[in-house]
Amino acid sequence: MAPRQRVVVVGAGFGGLNATKALRSLDVETLLIERHNFHLFQPLLYQVATGLLDPSQIAYPVRAAVRRARNARVLMATVTAVELDEHLLRTTAGDVSYDVLVLATGSTSNYFGMHELEQRATGLKTLGEAVHIRSTILAALEQATRAADAETRRRWLAFTVAGGGPTGVEMAGAIAELLRHVLPRDYPRLALEDASVTLLEARDQLLATFAPRLGRIAVKTLRRKGVTLLLGREVRGVDEGAVVLHDGTRVDAATLIWTAGVQAAAPSGLDALIRGRSCRIPVTPSLTVPDHPEVFVIGDLAELPYRGEPLPMLAPVAIQQGRHVAAVLTARRRGDPEPPFRYVDKGNMATIGRGAAVAQLGPVHVDGFTGWLMWLALHLVYIAGFRNRAVVIISWAWNFFFFDRSVRLILEPERNSRGKEET
Amino acid sequence: MAPRQRVVVVGAGFGGLNATKALRSLDVETLLIERHNFHLFQPLLYQVATGLLDPSQIAYPVRAAVRRARNARVLMATVTAVELDEHLLRTTAGDVSYDVLVLATGSTSNYFGMHELEQRATGLKTLGEAVHIRSTILAALEQATRAADAETRRRWLAFTVAGGGPTGVEMAGAIAELLRHVLPRDYPRLALEDASVTLLEARDQLLATFAPRLGRIAVKTLRRKGVTLLLGREVRGVDEGAVVLHDGTRVDAATLIWTAGVQAAAPSGLDALIRGRSCRIPVTPSLTVPDHPEVFVIGDLAELPYRGEPLPMLAPVAIQQGRHVAAVLTARRRGDPEPPFRYVDKGNMATIGRGAAVAQLGPVHVDGFTGWLMWLALHLVYIAGFRNRAVVIISWAWNFFFFDRSVRLILEPERNSRGKEET
Repeated sequence: MAPRQRVVVVGAGFGGLNATKALRSLDVETLLIERHNFHLFQPLLYQVATGLLDPSQIAYPVRAAVRRARNARVLMATVTAVELDEHLLRTTAGDVSYDVLVLATGSTSNYFGMHELEQRATGLKTLGEAVHIRSTILAALEQATRAADAETRRRWLAFTVAGGGPTGVEMAGAIAELLRHVLPRDYPRLALEDASVTLLEARDQLLATFAPRLGRIAVKTLRRKGVTLLLGREVRGVDEGAVVLHDGTRVDAATLIWTAGVQAAAPSGLDALIRGRSCRIPVTPSLTVPDHPEVFVIGDLAELPYRGEPLPMLAPVAIQQGRHVAAVLTARRRGDPEPPFRYVDKGNMATIGRGAAVAQLGPVHVDGFTGWLMWLALHLVYIAGFRNRAVVIISWAWNFFFFDRSVRLILEPERNSRGKEET
Repeated sequence: MAPRQRVVVVGAGFGGLNATKALRSLDVETLLIERHNFHLFQPLLYQVATGLLDPSQIAYPVRAAVRRARNARVLMATVTAVELDEHLLRTTAGDVSYDVLVLATGSTSNYFGMHELEQRATGLKTLGEAVHIRSTILAALEQATRAADAETRRRWLAFTVAGGGPTGVEMAGAIAELLRHVLPRDYPRLALEDASVTLLEARDQLLATFAPRLGRIAVKTLRRKGVTLLLGREVRGVDEGAVVLHDGTRVDAATLIWTAGVQAAAPSGLDALIRGRSCRIPVTPSLTVPDHPEVFVIGDLAELPYRGEPLPMLAPVAIQQGRHVAAVLTARRRGDPEPPFRYVDKGNMATIGRGAAVAQLGPVHVDGFTGWLMWLALHLVYIAGFRNRAVVIISWAWNFFFFDRSVRLILEPERNSRGKEET
């Protein structure tokens, strides 16, 4: 008997995790390589960044997530290079060979070559970044309490979010609520009216991937929450505690969160395949790389046209593509023609803070509290891990009814790399 | 009218927090200085270290904790020196003067000058250390899955705890349970019988501060859980992945947790007051420093005799002493004689893992499941913050009924100091 085919999946995001799960019904050996030991529910990162959820509530152990896929093993390692011709991966845990490769390494923040901006701003793609933003926001509040004058205080309390997509809108809304509803009780003596939340967006509208009406609702809702919107303004760089825009305007930003650019994160060795500013890899309708039918690329990393545009970098796309890999491999075994990937658009959603969201489900557009309830239901269905779900519900309910945020910890200043206290 | 007296409390542990709260009924201005923005429920640190609880479940924002003390302000800063003669504190946020000073800076791990040990081992006194231990344990498991041979695997799976007091006993018991009940499901292919948990103690008994019978119960319970006990063995140093004992024995310790020594953590400037190996500061029955009636010292930092021994470094002592500061200051205002501090011993408890604890309440000794229920009730009463309490109950119940641990995240390898991903 021939040895079973070895499928190596790189990345345990929505794409890689669903590919691994779907492969369990095939007669293959699956190896899932992930540099963390957890799957991250990225859409809720902004809630960790604003202290509503704990890291463990949106991170689920990879090994537990694929427990029922008995043909799958997990390797915690970082892939440093792909050798396409040798069917080999270089990893921090040694070389790994494959018969079939599924690349699902996702995306990372894109600072468009502005290195200083990259140093000063924090993206919102990893758990570490979310915890860092939480600490930064709370540390800025502490600094503001001991500011000598109003001007210094105003500068510490300037929170700026760049990027008017769903992440930026959610983040700006969540910070505004934190400042208005939660923190006044912790800082009764601090003049929080000196605080400002600014959202920068290069286009003239928010939520450009949504219907224009929903973008306008987001504008109205954020303004009502006290967020200053600067639309049609491009970020050109940073200057001490401020962001510099294309027209020379300086916007204070003691805390600067960058959601204005994203690019695919391919391991090295694939430079010849990467295309364009977003660094994605064009794939065939079978989700494979041209001339390499044994190499699948899925999720944010894959570029496939859909209604004249590349498919968006969204969890549902990655989930469906992950499952599609198993369908293609099954067809190959049977000698059937490979089924082309067809994206089923289940809609698009964004929250704009407490009790308000916009949702677009094909021709149906929903907003306000109804949108928010839909958002809530959908995320509860999707979020991984039943215990997590129970605790997330409690956290959300607590926040909704008591305007409280449970996780207000500044964790960073005290630690060095070994987790020991610095004096 | 004379300006109100300024009382400065340093440290928001059990002592400082309770002093600040008790001072709210006095006509004084209180300033609470704490280097973190949270109060830490230290007795449950081992549960964070073994993945049962999230950091936020045992850490409560200082500002929220003293919200009802309207005469109190909070300063997040580190005290770098005390200038007793000038009634002045040097802090990372500038100089602070005081009329009355309450020092409640607690204690830290004592490595008895063994610097290499200090580099290799992790204490269990801070939240950062607990999260680091959690990551270390899980990272060792990941290393073990890719070990080339059984010997390498055994070395990675060698977990050693030094110190047979309550913290060491709780920690060893919790790791043994993690290995036996929780991790086998995540690592079905890993030979976890190669794992070892070793508890080292210099004395011939465990829990030396408890009645001997309870120490013997702890020995029996831990042995039943598979913990190797090495009693009467002193740690002399480390040697690569092992601990070296006084008789030359080497004990593998890929993961090494140090609970075998503790010393008071006085800010600098108080060297003349510090006594002995434990670095505590002897105080009068009013809890003040001789010749400095305006300087109170409470909690782990204070040394006061009780039945022939110094009072133990325990939360109830710190809590009672914190409250006593307000009583002394009240007596002074009224011109009454200062009441001497009297410790009310409410008992002593330690858990030895799932459903087992020993408790000593004066002449009453309880163990087993009843002891554990008492431990549970007491900790639920004491733990700060109502929301925390609800979430802690859920986590405990979940763990008890499903043998699961929710928080199995390795958070460290991915982050540099800015919370950004390293490749």
